[in-house]
Amino acid sequence: VVGITLRIWSFLHKAWEIGVNEPKKFFHCLKVGMALSLVSLFYYMRPLYDGYGTNAMWAVMTVVVVFEYTVGATLCKCVNRAMATFLAGSLGIGVHWVANQCGEKFEPVVLEFSVFLLAAAATFFRFIPSVKARFDYGLLIFILTFSLVSVSGFRVDKLFEMAHQRLSTITIGVSFCIITSMLFCPVWAGQELYSLINRNLEKLADSLDGCVAEYFTDDGTKEDSSKNLQGYKCVLNSKATEESMANFARWEPAHGRFNFGHPWKQYLKIGSSMRNCAYCIETLNGCISSEIQAPEFLKKHFNDVCMRLSSHSSNVLKELGNTMKSMTKSSKTESSVREMNFTVQELQSALKSLPYQLALFTSPALEASNNGKDEAPTESSKVPLLEILPVTTVASLLIEIAARIEGIVEE
Amino acid sequence: VVGITLRIWSFLHKAWEIGVNEPKKFFHCLKVGMALSLVSLFYYMRPLYDGYGTNAMWAVMTVVVVFEYTVGATLCKCVNRAMATFLAGSLGIGVHWVANQCGEKFEPVVLEFSVFLLAAAATFFRFIPSVKARFDYGLLIFILTFSLVSVSGFRVDKLFEMAHQRLSTITIGVSFCIITSMLFCPVWAGQELYSLINRNLEKLADSLDGCVAEYFTDDGTKEDSSKNLQGYKCVLNSKATEESMANFARWEPAHGRFNFGHPWKQYLKIGSSMRNCAYCIETLNGCISSEIQAPEFLKKHFNDVCMRLSSHSSNVLKELGNTMKSMTKSSKTESSVREMNFTVQELQSALKSLPYQLALFTSPALEASNNGKDEAPTESSKVPLLEILPVTTVASLLIEIAARIEGIVEE
Repeated sequence: VVGITLRIWSFLHKAWEIGVNEPKKFFHCLKVGMALSLVSLFYYMRPLYDGYGTNAMWAVMTVVVVFEYTVGATLCKCVNRAMATFLAGSLGIGVHWVANQCGEKFEPVVLEFSVFLLAAAATFFRFIPSVKARFDYGLLIFILTFSLVSVSGFRVDKLFEMAHQRLSTITIGVSFCIITSMLFCPVWAGQELYSLINRNLEKLADSLDGCVAEYFTDDGTKEDSSKNLQGYKCVLNSKATEESMANFARWEPAHGRFNFGHPWKQYLKIGSSMRNCAYCIETLNGCISSEIQAPEFLKKHFNDVCMRLSSHSSNVLKELGNTMKSMTKSSKTESSVREMNFTVQELQSALKSLPYQLALFTSPALEASNNGKDEAPTESSKVPLLEILPVTTVASLLIEIAARIEGIVEE
Repeated sequence: VVGITLRIWSFLHKAWEIGVNEPKKFFHCLKVGMALSLVSLFYYMRPLYDGYGTNAMWAVMTVVVVFEYTVGATLCKCVNRAMATFLAGSLGIGVHWVANQCGEKFEPVVLEFSVFLLAAAATFFRFIPSVKARFDYGLLIFILTFSLVSVSGFRVDKLFEMAHQRLSTITIGVSFCIITSMLFCPVWAGQELYSLINRNLEKLADSLDGCVAEYFTDDGTKEDSSKNLQGYKCVLNSKATEESMANFARWEPAHGRFNFGHPWKQYLKIGSSMRNCAYCIETLNGCISSEIQAPEFLKKHFNDVCMRLSSHSSNVLKELGNTMKSMTKSSKTESSVREMNFTVQELQSALKSLPYQLALFTSPALEASNNGKDEAPTESSKVPLLEILPVTTVASLLIEIAARIEGIVEE
């Protein structure tokens, strides 16, 4: 019993945290409640009920099914639902007419066959990725409406009226949804995508900084930085979210600083180049936490230049975040990229001088190492791994930046 | 016009390819068509129609909405739908009774308020990740049914009958769905997950092999191997699929070699450790295609041991695939892990001997390099990067294997 109470308590606690941390989600819940109450109020009023009878409940259903978190998703579903209902309704009537011409005996056969054929075809289209991304819901509703119309058409005979009623009740539901979702604290998919990308840029910068800093500053205050360090993991897993957001954002009208037809695909490109960066950081992180560690004197040799390089790189990332915020190409970005490139060259020359220095450092040890426990040769072979990895990271950062600047240019 | 025709043609071509490559999907479409035809046939028959009237269309709706690609997903949706309808229906009747007691004036107020409150609460629960994974659809149906019952209850007065009819028509639809999806060419989520993981293991092995081979065998036949090389990218992006599959697989009854309560979570662990590997391969791949290349003599020095290491590592991966297929812990896996570990040590000792050899190779060049264009120092500092990366990859492979063997032990 205590276990169950504890679980419920922790569950409620988690729920409360979501509510406090993301008030937008909380507002969304209120919006759903409001839209539903409005529609049912509409239903209580005589005129609608008298006109449509029990068909008025389609309006309620539409609101429940169509209302989504972001405006873009709601619009996408609304358009899909309305279009699919219209298409399937008219097709259903057409098929019904054909079936009627075939005589009473063949009527059910024709109807059955058409349901089978169209349902199978529509289900097949749902498997095609490009169709699925945009019209998945529409195809579902298409199957639904078509089978309802053709099946009930066999009995009810008031086919036109039914199709018309369904369409108009859906229109009512859809308009309620659109109004509520756009007027009261709207959550724009475009805005969400934009801030997701921005947040990820910051997280990437932080964890790059944190990674390199942790490596060079030898424990001490490791605990509190580990949270920052894990930031890049969010970047790794955000692909699906980004894609659906970009998909929904296309449906949205102009809002805030975003026009209709804003180049949302650019954000996807930025996202994927950020993910490339994150892969590198992941590997870098693995090297840092590996048990084989470089000796102190080599760490010191690279300490300065690596720290500078990572801070410059994360500066570039942050600068890109700023550029995105202001949506103009600033000269600051270019100068920080230049700084970064300069530091890369410094690191490269530091690496070049390494073997020479190593030879000075370790030549006495080298002779001794051939038999016993060797330290110096291990160092010289292992250090470059840990040190050069930032270079590869930076290289991919540079690639990312190239892609990014293209994106900014187009804005 | 030509452009449009071409696009339609390429679209149809793609669709045809999907149908040919994945006959399961094609069968799924036929199954949907069949289930729908069966239900509508049921609807045409007098007895059901006479009993339920237009409510019988709920059965059609249920089939359309609930039928999913895998058995697990269908079952999950069915259970969700049935449970939610039952719960919301009884709750709706309860609220309706309370509202009735409050007098005619307050009745709509109480109903409106309860719709608002429950819809908002249920929407909120849908945001909680653990709830969303399992009961998202159930909560949607809960809102839907509750608002339908409480709204139409105000008018129709035949509340019990409606709730009962809805429940029984949904039961009819659900049972049609379950029967069709389980009896005709069933697609089990568990089986799909299993073969996805298996395929990914193979792809990982192939691209590891391909990567290292491409690096050491200097172009020539690069073209045809590039497809194998990209295999690891599938591993990177399969997280969401794996999770939803594992989620659905839990709902499935015993099938094939999988019992009910098969440890599906183990597959997720394997999946995530495979993804860790794939990150390493991604970075490795980046290094390989980078413009800075190591000199030939160093490549030759590592050629043999690296090739052996990669083939051993991919052997371990393939062996794991075999182990999964037979579902028993074979001694072969252990021996191939041992082989791999041995080769890791060989590579490490090759690395240790490197600075010594380098000193022999480059000591004349070293003196000359301090002023002009230096080659040798660059080499000695850059080669280890490209060479040691396989070691890190293998290290993470080892971690993966440790996690993997745990998983196998539990099977």
